[in-house]
Amino acid sequence: MDFLVRVDASRAYDLPADDRKDVIEQERVRGRELMAEGVLRHFWRLPGKRANIGVWTVADADALEEVLDSLPIRPYADIDVTPLATHPMVAAAKAAHP
Amino acid sequence: MDFLVRVDASRAYDLPADDRKDVIEQERVRGRELMAEGVLRHFWRLPGKRANIGVWTVADADALEEVLDSLPIRPYADIDVTPLATHPMVAAAKAAHP
Amino acid sequence: MDFLVRVDASRAYDLPADDRKDVIEQERVRGRELMAEGVLRHFWRLPGKRANIGVWTVADADALEEVLDSLPIRPYADIDVTPLATHPMVAAAKAAHP
Amino acid sequence: MDFLVRVDASRAYDLPADDRKDVIEQERVRGRELMAEGVLRHFWRLPGKRANIGVWTVADADALEEVLDSLPIRPYADIDVTPLATHPMVAAAKAAHP
Amino acid sequence: MDFLVRVDASRAYDLPADDRKDVIEQERVRGRELMAEGVLRHFWRLPGKRANIGVWTVADADALEEVLDSLPIRPYADIDVTPLATHPMVAAAKAAHP
Amino acid sequence: MDFLVRVDASRAYDLPADDRKDVIEQERVRGRELMAEGVLRHFWRLPGKRANIGVWTVADADALEEVLDSLPIRPYADIDVTPLATHPMVAAAKAAHP
Amino acid sequence: MDFLVRVDASRAYDLPADDRKDVIEQERVRGRELMAEGVLRHFWRLPGKRANIGVWTVADADALEEVLDSLPIRPYADIDVTPLATHPMVAAAKAAHP
Amino acid sequence: MDFLVRVDASRAYDLPADDRKDVIEQERVRGRELMAEGVLRHFWRLPGKRANIGVWTVADADALEEVLDSLPIRPYADIDVTPLATHPMVAAAKAAHP
Amino acid sequence: MDFLVRVDASRAYDLPADDRKDVIEQERVRGRELMAEGVLRHFWRLPGKRANIGVWTVADADALEEVLDSLPIRPYADIDVTPLATHPMVAAAKAAHP
Amino acid sequence: MDFLVRVDASRAYDLPADDRKDVIEQERVRGRELMAEGVLRHFWRLPGKRANIGVWTVADADALEEVLDSLPIRPYADIDVTPLATHPMVAAAKAAHP
Repeated sequence: MDFLVRVDASRAYDLPADDRKDVIEQERVRGRELMAEGVLRHFWRLPGKRANIGVWTVADADALEEVLDSLPIRPYADIDVTPLATHPMVAAAKAAHP
Repeated sequence: MDFLVRVDASRAYDLPADDRKDVIEQERVRGRELMAEGVLRHFWRLPGKRANIGVWTVADADALEEVLDSLPIRPYADIDVTPLATHPMVAAAKAAHP
Repeated sequence: MDFLVRVDASRAYDLPADDRKDVIEQERVRGRELMAEGVLRHFWRLPGKRANIGVWTVADADALEEVLDSLPIRPYADIDVTPLATHPMVAAAKAAHP
Repeated sequence: MDFLVRVDASRAYDLPADDRKDVIEQERVRGRELMAEGVLRHFWRLPGKRANIGVWTVADADALEEVLDSLPIRPYADIDVTPLATHPMVAAAKAAHP
Repeated sequence: MDFLVRVDASRAYDLPADDRKDVIEQERVRGRELMAEGVLRHFWRLPGKRANIGVWTVADADALEEVLDSLPIRPYADIDVTPLATHPMVAAAKAAHP
Repeated sequence: MDFLVRVDASRAYDLPADDRKDVIEQERVRGRELMAEGVLRHFWRLPGKRANIGVWTVADADALEEVLDSLPIRPYADIDVTPLATHPMVAAAKAAHP
Repeated sequence: MDFLVRVDASRAYDLPADDRKDVIEQERVRGRELMAEGVLRHFWRLPGKRANIGVWTVADADALEEVLDSLPIRPYADIDVTPLATHPMVAAAKAAHP
Repeated sequence: MDFLVRVDASRAYDLPADDRKDVIEQERVRGRELMAEGVLRHFWRLPGKRANIGVWTVADADALEEVLDSLPIRPYADIDVTPLATHPMVAAAKAAHP
Repeated sequence: MDFLVRVDASRAYDLPADDRKDVIEQERVRGRELMAEGVLRHFWRLPGKRANIGVWTVADADALEEVLDSLPIRPYADIDVTPLATHPMVAAAKAAHP
Repeated sequence: MDFLVRVDASRAYDLPADDRKDVIEQERVRGRELMAEGVLRHFWRLPGKRANIGVWTVADADALEEVLDSLPIRPYADIDVTPLATHPMVAAAKAAHP
């Protein structure tokens, strides 16, 4: 199941410079793992914001919460979650070109 | 997976009286089916509103969309959906008293 | 009477680590009591949030305020309360299968 | 239990003049009954609005919904409901001067 | 003239415990005076909030501001004020039972 | 007592052209009366809007509601009312130059 | 350049049934073209809504407006557009696995 | 003086096709006049919207209201106006390169 | 040209008592100057708020920004500005009684 | 491609006086560079706000993010970005007077 997830990390920028650096570096490591696992499939920076938005693919809301809880940036992040349903045209396209 | 779903049927009250009656009757029939299937597990009226709020249990967002699309009231309903994750204390209680 | 209650505990995460741990542990103890008493009947985590949402069953608003005031997390919680009325279909189902 | 209830009847003013007159007259009759029953205890016009706000005293949310559903203006009303808890200072004053 | 006044005292809970206790005790003393003077006629706790809502009866907005400025909690309070007009049905009831 | 009153007459522009003209002409007549009576003391157009904003001077909220109810545009107007209190610097200036 | 685009087609459901059917069928044809052209790369239904959300890849805002203007559903659609910037981690991943 | 003006013409799209065409054609004629007069200096389409946003240069709010009132689209437009002040860096640049 | 200006000085109340006193005293001096110059023509306290609202008369937005920047309270103030256009009825009244 | 960008620098005013001065001076230097490069083409102060609004011309959202990230004020700025599409009337005017 897909979720649209917006992660605003503005509060991480209130940390002392060294702590912030550490958190961001750890976050990147965890992010690469999630990309490799196919969880974090598409994501973008929102220009002008300290936030990214992306599509996360997990089994369900429990799995999403577990993954979000594993993010080093979690304590400093404001996160908005939108559940996504498969569009019938996308399903049809996949059926045609499996 | 559970979703909190708020269904506002205000627009159904703009229908001619007979059509409205039909839609509401059909909706009740469908509602009873969903209760019997364990999909619509808990729901309430919001006092003063033409809306109900409830917990719907389905496999994922695709299944939820399919169920919502089967509602006779759908064309007249404004629906808000919030995904819910299992609370660890509820999981612990279920594990203790399975 | 049922209330839908959303408890956002974000501010507890600004506490020093030891205080936060204490508050969360005390909150869990109180939560288990409220579950045992049938007050806190259904509740969930909101994925990505430091918040839970649930259905609380008490006599009335006075009893709800008393229970909420007993929560160790109360000083750090932003709480939203929505009163719920019994849905006639639920009442009918209970009457049929008492 | 007390509820603060805001009833916005703007949509009644879209009715044909005769229907509107009928609804408003019926509403006044029902309002006087509710005042006599001690349900509608305090209420006011909101200046500039087609709305009133007041304190309604009923057993619980089910009773409130039942009363609101009995209002002739209900189909044309947008209603907001806020549950109220007894203030300890009011309780103390009542205890002192019962 | 009546005003609906919502007083949110959340910020008082950021004070050191002793200061907070003092402010709340002083506020109660002032509240009892205002009740005795017939200014603070009806008020309630909002369940889950650090706020109360009530009906204040004063000559006009100047008198209201003067009274609100006399509250010990004022520096820590977020206050919302709504002017209220007499409802014709209430006026009629008073005329009938003066 | 002064009130800041915003009158949005957008809905009058949905009337048939002749009715709209009539209402606007009647509104101007009533407006000139209110200016002559010192009720409508200062008012402005909000550029780009079908709305005006102004300062209305009346005894209290009851008098304001009565005046607003006398406006021919009332059925088509969305009105927002803000109570105003005398600023101490204005009071001081008036005391110095009565 | 990528844009996150939310297309709410609720107003199409106010059309007469035949017109609506036509518009939706035409929209699907156009949608398949945009998928084939690589413009409409990822999109989903929002459960409970008459809306979809997706990622559109075009040269710039002019190209986006041109594409949106080509949608048969455009006259009935409320569209929200968010510009997206490449995330450095995605850029790095693409550089590593071109 | 400059104003940022957002003109949303969505309601013009509810007109019968011929009327809409007329209004849009008349609006373009008037727009070209305002461009030639230096009033409408910069403006853009908002992608996905039936709206434009631009910078209008006029003497003051009275002149702006007069110009906006001359727009054929005015009865169908929702207009938002933001006053703009010269930025000191722009003033300095103009002083250096008059 | 007139502007409606709302000045919320809440943040000044976070200053140490002596600094706050100084700022408020300086603000009053500046306010009296602006009243004498005819800039600050009408203003009021908003009951319950740490804010005033008033009508400021200046040449244009540049002059307004310059005047607002001269306020000692500026660093602690949240300011909202609304441009006002002369109402034709006010213009007519002035023409009749110049 | 053009973007409307609103930069609110309120948080820079929480910095110690010397740091704030430094950041603002560095920001002006960077601003002059961006003006010289044709990136920052039009911008204004928003009267009463610690914010400016302007039109930024860059290749796309990636280029915009890169430029915004180069601003010394970035860590203290709240930035809102709106993509702009060429208006057909502006395109026509440019084609006529290239």
